[in-house]
Amino acid sequence: MNRNGIPLACPIPKTDFDHVVMGHGGGGKQSADLLRTVFLPMLGNEILSRLEDQATLRWPGGRLAFTTDSFVVRPIFFPGGDIGKLAVTGTVNDLAVGGARPLFLSAAFILEEGLSLRDLERVVRSMRDACLEADVTLVTGDTKVVDKGKGDQLFITTAGVGVVADGISLSVQSARPGDRILLSGPIGDHGIAILSQREGIEFESTLESDAAPLTDLAQAILRAAPGTRLMRDPTRGGLAATLHEIAQASRVGIRLSEARVPIRPEVKGACEMLGLDPLYVANEGKLVAVVPAAQADRALLAARTESAGKNATLVGEIVEDESRMVILDSVVGSPRVVHLPAGTQLPRIC
Amino acid sequence: MNRNGIPLACPIPKTDFDHVVMGHGGGGKQSADLLRTVFLPMLGNEILSRLEDQATLRWPGGRLAFTTDSFVVRPIFFPGGDIGKLAVTGTVNDLAVGGARPLFLSAAFILEEGLSLRDLERVVRSMRDACLEADVTLVTGDTKVVDKGKGDQLFITTAGVGVVADGISLSVQSARPGDRILLSGPIGDHGIAILSQREGIEFESTLESDAAPLTDLAQAILRAAPGTRLMRDPTRGGLAATLHEIAQASRVGIRLSEARVPIRPEVKGACEMLGLDPLYVANEGKLVAVVPAAQADRALLAARTESAGKNATLVGEIVEDESRMVILDSVVGSPRVVHLPAGTQLPRIC
Repeated sequence: MNRNGIPLACPIPKTDFDHVVMGHGGGGKQSADLLRTVFLPMLGNEILSRLEDQATLRWPGGRLAFTTDSFVVRPIFFPGGDIGKLAVTGTVNDLAVGGARPLFLSAAFILEEGLSLRDLERVVRSMRDACLEADVTLVTGDTKVVDKGKGDQLFITTAGVGVVADGISLSVQSARPGDRILLSGPIGDHGIAILSQREGIEFESTLESDAAPLTDLAQAILRAAPGTRLMRDPTRGGLAATLHEIAQASRVGIRLSEARVPIRPEVKGACEMLGLDPLYVANEGKLVAVVPAAQADRALLAARTESAGKNATLVGEIVEDESRMVILDSVVGSPRVVHLPAGTQLPRIC
Repeated sequence: MNRNGIPLACPIPKTDFDHVVMGHGGGGKQSADLLRTVFLPMLGNEILSRLEDQATLRWPGGRLAFTTDSFVVRPIFFPGGDIGKLAVTGTVNDLAVGGARPLFLSAAFILEEGLSLRDLERVVRSMRDACLEADVTLVTGDTKVVDKGKGDQLFITTAGVGVVADGISLSVQSARPGDRILLSGPIGDHGIAILSQREGIEFESTLESDAAPLTDLAQAILRAAPGTRLMRDPTRGGLAATLHEIAQASRVGIRLSEARVPIRPEVKGACEMLGLDPLYVANEGKLVAVVPAAQADRALLAARTESAGKNATLVGEIVEDESRMVILDSVVGSPRVVHLPAGTQLPRIC
């Protein structure tokens, strides 16, 4: 990671865009480029430039975690959830993977004129249920309306605050060679559930988004493995983008074992049909933890006691590698490099 | 105010909308109706249902203020500011009027595909300047991109956290008969500046948005008049909507002296030409404080020492009135009732 926290190993193309493209929102190279060229030069500071999923702030009486995300998923309803559930769990999870206990949320709605109030009610109800499940309280909000044709039904931006207990110090820069990588369950469910809804693809069994709060899982891992280096939720850009972030920020390489990465047969099938790589498909209820080797088994056992982690596995290892590559040890054939996606396979997935 | 914190005195029409209309975002009756029928039944809790501009939360070691707003102003650049400046000052001010000292902001961007990166840079630069002016740090953020035609250049949602010093206890429910109403300066500048830009209206002198941080002004008033009941910034719906909020929540009436409400000649002229009432036009750098009569002169003097309050005046008084009316004592003619606007005169003003 360079001074601004931007990946170096995968060469970033000079900004050759004059305008925003969909890939700027994809969580890959183009997103990083926008950060590097527009946001950080202007707004960069000691905290923002760390590029964690949440800011951890000194606060009278303890540490406060603070995060925000906008949700623009299309369609707004999909198998296993909707934009409201996503808006709550997404922000809860950005706090949880920082080791924080999420407490309070804000929600700001941008409604398109003409949105059905029944749809809005359904979304708000789902936010209520998600808040109950995640044990957070929505305490402040805002509503704006934009003219028909200037929005897309509704966008929701949530922000969240939580407390970080003393002694917890997680950072995407702290992975060390020899550490193990824990993944909490099968990947790609969210992205493929959205895509199937969009494209009208039917599965034999129902494939649902994995959207779920990760607080209990994260806390269980931290209790069992207090040496945990960092946690992340692999959303936009999927597991591949998350592993790249870790490799770049910690200046290490990553070996990933394909055989150990759980993928549901429906997801595998859909990906083959659609020419997608599940490593790049978004998740909304999965957690990646980097844990010292000596604590990895305890972390794994603890994760499996939590519903969000019952299919957890150790999927790989941090290795020394100056070029900070993510290498997949394939089930068949020789190892291959997992590249950081440039733009986005699936736009507006969250 | 009824149990859900919604005005009662102005009869609310039964929801006869199936769909979102522009007025749902206008800060008037239709906004209140959406809150009452959709958001509060589902999400209402002790804190949210207070309907303050910010949530004040118990927190280890002190009290924390937390707020959020989305900004969808059109056009994104206007005399005296842009959407970026507004996004910073708007959230800072929602904290400041709660008596908090704003510390940290988050910013979430929803970019429309095709937005000029030069425009984005200009907005981000202006956010940086506004953060410096308001003495806050932007510590976390997010960027999403939506397809061309599914947004409108860019929307920004900011959230903010601040600390509330011990002893400060402001509430929109605490105005008492006899209290004086302080207004920090001339009204309507922001709304008319936006409208002039939209409609291509030229003024002899330049009329600029009043967007500015109110922290120092709010703190100066609190120091001089520690008995201050509440403060508000009269944004959407203008001074009229703010006074209605106070009247309803505190179960009081309000007498406003037209002669004492400062309005720039350009704003008065534009309002006459366009058939608008400046009482309903949005402000982005004005503060309303309700202060006990005995401390009103001190509050006024203190306000005038601050640049954001140099034109402050005492514009009215809280009176006993079970029907919670806002009455304007006109310069000419008999007193008139100031109604709560139903929808919005000027959509997308912030």
